Amino acid sequence: MLHAVIMAGGAGTRFWPASRRDRPKQFLELAGTGPLLRATFDRVVPLVGAARTWVVTSRSMVARTRELLPELPGENVLGEPAGRDTAACAGWAAAVLGARDSGAVCLLLPADHVVGDEEAFRRALAAGGAHVSGEGGLLTFGIRPTRPETGFGYLKLGPREATVDGLAVHRLERFVEKPEPDRARRYVEGGDFLWNSGMFAWRTADLLEEIRRQLPRLAEGLDRIAAAAGTAREAEVLDEVYPTLPRTSVDHGIMEGARRTWTIPVDFPWSDVGSWPALGEVLDADPAGNVRRGRVLAEDTTGSILVGEGPVVVTVGLEGYVVVATPDAVLVVPADRAQEVKGLVGRLADLGWDDVL
Amino acid sequence: MLHAVIMAGGAGTRFWPASRRDRPKQFLELAGTGPLLRATFDRVVPLVGAARTWVVTSRSMVARTRELLPELPGENVLGEPAGRDTAACAGWAAAVLGARDSGAVCLLLPADHVVGDEEAFRRALAAGGAHVSGEGGLLTFGIRPTRPETGFGYLKLGPREATVDGLAVHRLERFVEKPEPDRARRYVEGGDFLWNSGMFAWRTADLLEEIRRQLPRLAEGLDRIAAAAGTAREAEVLDEVYPTLPRTSVDHGIMEGARRTWTIPVDFPWSDVGSWPALGEVLDADPAGNVRRGRVLAEDTTGSILVGEGPVVVTVGLEGYVVVATPDAVLVVPADRAQEVKGLVGRLADLGWDDVL
Repeated sequence: MLHAVIMAGGAGTRFWPASRRDRPKQFLELAGTGPLLRATFDRVVPLVGAARTWVVTSRSMVARTRELLPELPGENVLGEPAGRDTAACAGWAAAVLGARDSGAVCLLLPADHVVGDEEAFRRALAAGGAHVSGEGGLLTFGIRPTRPETGFGYLKLGPREATVDGLAVHRLERFVEKPEPDRARRYVEGGDFLWNSGMFAWRTADLLEEIRRQLPRLAEGLDRIAAAAGTAREAEVLDEVYPTLPRTSVDHGIMEGARRTWTIPVDFPWSDVGSWPALGEVLDADPAGNVRRGRVLAEDTTGSILVGEGPVVVTVGLEGYVVVATPDAVLVVPADRAQEVKGLVGRLADLGWDDVL
Repeated sequence: MLHAVIMAGGAGTRFWPASRRDRPKQFLELAGTGPLLRATFDRVVPLVGAARTWVVTSRSMVARTRELLPELPGENVLGEPAGRDTAACAGWAAAVLGARDSGAVCLLLPADHVVGDEEAFRRALAAGGAHVSGEGGLLTFGIRPTRPETGFGYLKLGPREATVDGLAVHRLERFVEKPEPDRARRYVEGGDFLWNSGMFAWRTADLLEEIRRQLPRLAEGLDRIAAAAGTAREAEVLDEVYPTLPRTSVDHGIMEGARRTWTIPVDFPWSDVGSWPALGEVLDADPAGNVRRGRVLAEDTTGSILVGEGPVVVTVGLEGYVVVATPDAVLVVPADRAQEVKGLVGRLADLGWDDVL
């Protein structure tokens, strides 16, 4: 059966001050369509059903996740005692799924992306699931690039091997790290590179086999956790073992060295909403090129992201800035320096201003 | 006896979003030494005593004024049914004072200035009071200019006529409207021009006589109000007459045409804190030239006014801006366009965002 695992463990400091420790990015309504996690859930449930939808999040977010997704069976929310990157997350979910459904095919999806065409999204996921269900191997969905983005990794397309429901399935030739602008431009023009979306499909058995082969320490830890599942020591063992699992990503730890990998190029509108300026990818701009949320009066202000999460925001004479106001914290930063926000949040911690973290 | 009348009727939209309809500038702690009105009161009471200190404010602010100044006799707070500029305010206060103390000498002081040397301030006020007590006439205190400010009116010094407690008393030759930068520069260099501070001294009888001569309609209105004082119709007549009083300033309506006018040049540190950038005149800047209030993290930010009235403020890459954050409204404006704030507040009213006015 087809399952979906939604990864909702991120801290999301890049969306400070809207995001906080207890209100990470996936709980924000960045795209104006409800919290991102809720939107992801709603997007995938028509394909797999709520009973086969799973959410992996940090333990402190389990209660809020259940509250946000009341249709989801409570046991389908997996609370990590500690964040150990995506390979551990994917492996743990596969082990839990596999114990319940030995023939499970699993889609692995980030909770905090925005997708413009839900039908196309589900059609692609269904095709990917169908392909790995029959052929095995690990499959990643690659987004046809629309701009020479230097903030993403890329996927190099290999030869086309199959067509499922009209969608081409290619061999995945290799992963490419975030490129320089010139190279990114060539990638977009060349047509055989895709953005690495971080969305995957596999049979859980195949994923666990690759983990056992490439990441034996992870496999061993997952075995210990699985052995305790359903016993009185379940929580204790999870708390003990999970924080010691090797910290690596699905891309680096599993996909790059996997024996058989596929990719399906997709072209539905997609954004990982990676930082404040990316709001311009998911919300319409006004005639002056400003993206606004909330009550904003923008005088002689252009190309800016203006967000009032409660407070009224009044700006004069800004060009290409991000202004985000919440009742207890305000950020003003040039859009092209928005990647510094994460570091600034660290500085706030150093200053002891924990109440706004 | 020497009295002091503090004018505290201003709306202060130039300090939005810190100032609001129900929290005008004189109630703000702009200089970090308590609310401006409280600081003005504390500055003058050692000279005249609380019993001879008076505050004229808008009726809606009477209760808050009494709360802020519990030492002040309740009847010393005069609530205007409507703002009618400073001539009406000064005249009404003089009439009320005069009824109680026919020989009263009165100091008229704005509630929202900041003074750096309180002893020098009181010494100058005492000298002014002493001079007009003996000589009559209307006296204004002129600030020795420290920069070619174009936002103030100036006073042209006439010949020196007296010395009181070491302070020179000059004839006031004339008032000068806000000058162009070149002229302002000449004024500062020449040495015989002063900033018009809006602080005055006179015998109440002399002021009322000048009002009767120059502003007969105002005198007539004040007579009607005075005739009803202490009767059952007092409030009713005040409500009826006050809003009809001619609207003019002490400078234009009384001083410019007065028969005998004086000025005492003073040089204590003084600011009328006229708009956000003026905060730099009353608070120390950090090494990057930023003036900060509240919890502010300023990264690569210079020459800016950064005010967190509650919220934490984080800025990156700003040069010469004003950022003011309150829990329900945020302002970002170049310092050299801070005079536009008043107009923006009007725009907010047009938008119907009355909750932040």
